Amino acid sequence: MAATAAQLKDDLDIVIPTIRNLDFLEMWRPFFQPYHLIIVQDGDPSRTIKVPPGFDYELYNRNDINKILGPRASCISFKDSACRCFGYMVSKKKYIFTIDDDCFVAKDPTGKDIDALEQHIKNLLCPSTPFFFNTLYEPYREGADFVRGYPFSLREGVPTAVSHGLWLNIPDYDAPTQLVKPLERNTRYVDAIMTIPKGTLFPMCGMNLAFDRDLIGPAMYFGLMGEGQPIGRYDDMWAGWCCKVICDHLGLGIKTGLPYIYHSKASNPFVNLRKEYKGIFWQEEIIPFFQQATLSKDATTVQKCYIELSKQVKEKLGKLDEYFIKLADAMITWIEAWDQLNPVKAPAK
Amino acid sequence: MAATAAQLKDDLDIVIPTIRNLDFLEMWRPFFQPYHLIIVQDGDPSRTIKVPPGFDYELYNRNDINKILGPRASCISFKDSACRCFGYMVSKKKYIFTIDDDCFVAKDPTGKDIDALEQHIKNLLCPSTPFFFNTLYEPYREGADFVRGYPFSLREGVPTAVSHGLWLNIPDYDAPTQLVKPLERNTRYVDAIMTIPKGTLFPMCGMNLAFDRDLIGPAMYFGLMGEGQPIGRYDDMWAGWCCKVICDHLGLGIKTGLPYIYHSKASNPFVNLRKEYKGIFWQEEIIPFFQQATLSKDATTVQKCYIELSKQVKEKLGKLDEYFIKLADAMITWIEAWDQLNPVKAPAK
Repeated sequence: MAATAAQLKDDLDIVIPTIRNLDFLEMWRPFFQPYHLIIVQDGDPSRTIKVPPGFDYELYNRNDINKILGPRASCISFKDSACRCFGYMVSKKKYIFTIDDDCFVAKDPTGKDIDALEQHIKNLLCPSTPFFFNTLYEPYREGADFVRGYPFSLREGVPTAVSHGLWLNIPDYDAPTQLVKPLERNTRYVDAIMTIPKGTLFPMCGMNLAFDRDLIGPAMYFGLMGEGQPIGRYDDMWAGWCCKVICDHLGLGIKTGLPYIYHSKASNPFVNLRKEYKGIFWQEEIIPFFQQATLSKDATTVQKCYIELSKQVKEKLGKLDEYFIKLADAMITWIEAWDQLNPVKAPAK
Repeated sequence: MAATAAQLKDDLDIVIPTIRNLDFLEMWRPFFQPYHLIIVQDGDPSRTIKVPPGFDYELYNRNDINKILGPRASCISFKDSACRCFGYMVSKKKYIFTIDDDCFVAKDPTGKDIDALEQHIKNLLCPSTPFFFNTLYEPYREGADFVRGYPFSLREGVPTAVSHGLWLNIPDYDAPTQLVKPLERNTRYVDAIMTIPKGTLFPMCGMNLAFDRDLIGPAMYFGLMGEGQPIGRYDDMWAGWCCKVICDHLGLGIKTGLPYIYHSKASNPFVNLRKEYKGIFWQEEIIPFFQQATLSKDATTVQKCYIELSKQVKEKLGKLDEYFIKLADAMITWIEAWDQLNPVKAPAK
């Protein structure tokens, strides 16, 4: 727990989809400048992204992705921020932090700027406790512990693979909720971090997310969204469902709660509705599918788990829509591409 | 959600084990005076408890319990605050709030006194969402909702059976943690309420607890503790594990989080260690037992569920120690006593 963001600067990459907002990097400069940035441009490769001086970065556009992955580039979404997962794949670091360009530095209740990155790193370095609920939330935080009745054998916890941060101001609502509550703002700062219990799924948002590439990287695929696809805005959800099932199987943890970022503007609910409406139907089948998914004893690595899952997607969700057959194939292609860029070492676990 | 504590005054009893502290009722007077109190005295029946004027109460000592229940009084603990569950049984109200006499009114971060009862009632009147995790916590609170990716079919929720409140100042630690961290105080006000997910057990503390008698009352048995028993301080834990398994089976919800009370003093860790040490071993077996417990389709009422569970306790935990055989029998006696005082009406669900 003594490690700070600065000490980990050689172990973490920040992955950002297309930066449309020049204020974004200036606002984060004090926090991001020590790190390497990977920017993945989602649209027209001829457009240039101006990165202000002082940042250490690499930028990939569609031409770069095609060149690096060849035919396997088909698994990376085009004209959608889901393309960011290419950045997870090309990174050589242990940790990834990914953030959207409309997310700014939030303030804690004392008015202090929140160093989101530092909190994510704390979360990832600290074990998770998925097997039993602790009513005082994160037991490893200063001033907290396991409460009476918490089995001692479970207090060591398991490694944390994912840290899911939250958002003040504009909440991450679906289009129908946006339409119904256009003025709702999240002003409640909940001073908590918690492990999502084993067997429980959650909606993982990619706006403010960190993870351990070695532990879960190959499952952090953001699917097929954007141009040519029947659905959008389910990229992070898809990754979250897959990651949760695999973390549960491999005995890894996912934390949610702190840190907050300030989500500055709501995306257009009409555009969102068009992207989401099939997902709103489909998730009624997808969630039970993931709730019931089980992986075999042979699935001892993230890659093996992911390939098993892709087969189940094809078999069970393929009936729902042919999109899932394409997605299942893309999941395999993604793993092939991952292994191409990350030659297999000894399994992380 | 519009109902307030005052509107429910005819529907709720406050159950308190022996009051040793005269300040206790004075401090709660503004909040408790509208309600009926049931005080259950745990020790020597010849000792008298002075209740200050202005409170509407009934008091039961051991002689009363023996007289009312006859031989079935054996299921009610003696010389232990676990006897409070007798109060749940004699109440005729829909809701119960139970609190310890060393718990005072807490203040929220703005310095305002917290009306714990009002928050518990809000929690109980508002549905629970045990089937999927909402990252913004309680979706029904003002300023919150279900986030993107939350299935619409699950947004109606299920009835809430239990509201588990938390404690500022002295945290609810076991004896070993008390001994190791004698100075630790809980100063973190976490502004959250959440449903404990289906399939996840939690350590339920009886210090600040409310529940719906109609929905879960017969499972709220605080076991055999105190004089003549090999264990103490597991009364509320036992009830929590049983209630959680039964709520999961019957499709009911348990909430935890707000409201806070101020827990004024730590109990003696040496005394606690003596009471707890067998429980600290046993819970390593009890928790997996409850994690794996399943109830049959025929278990359609809380009573039927509880009787099935008692049989499993006898069969599986009886091997651990003969105490569990005695406890399993007491669970049956408790249900008989409950039905004696609460002649069976149509099942609540």
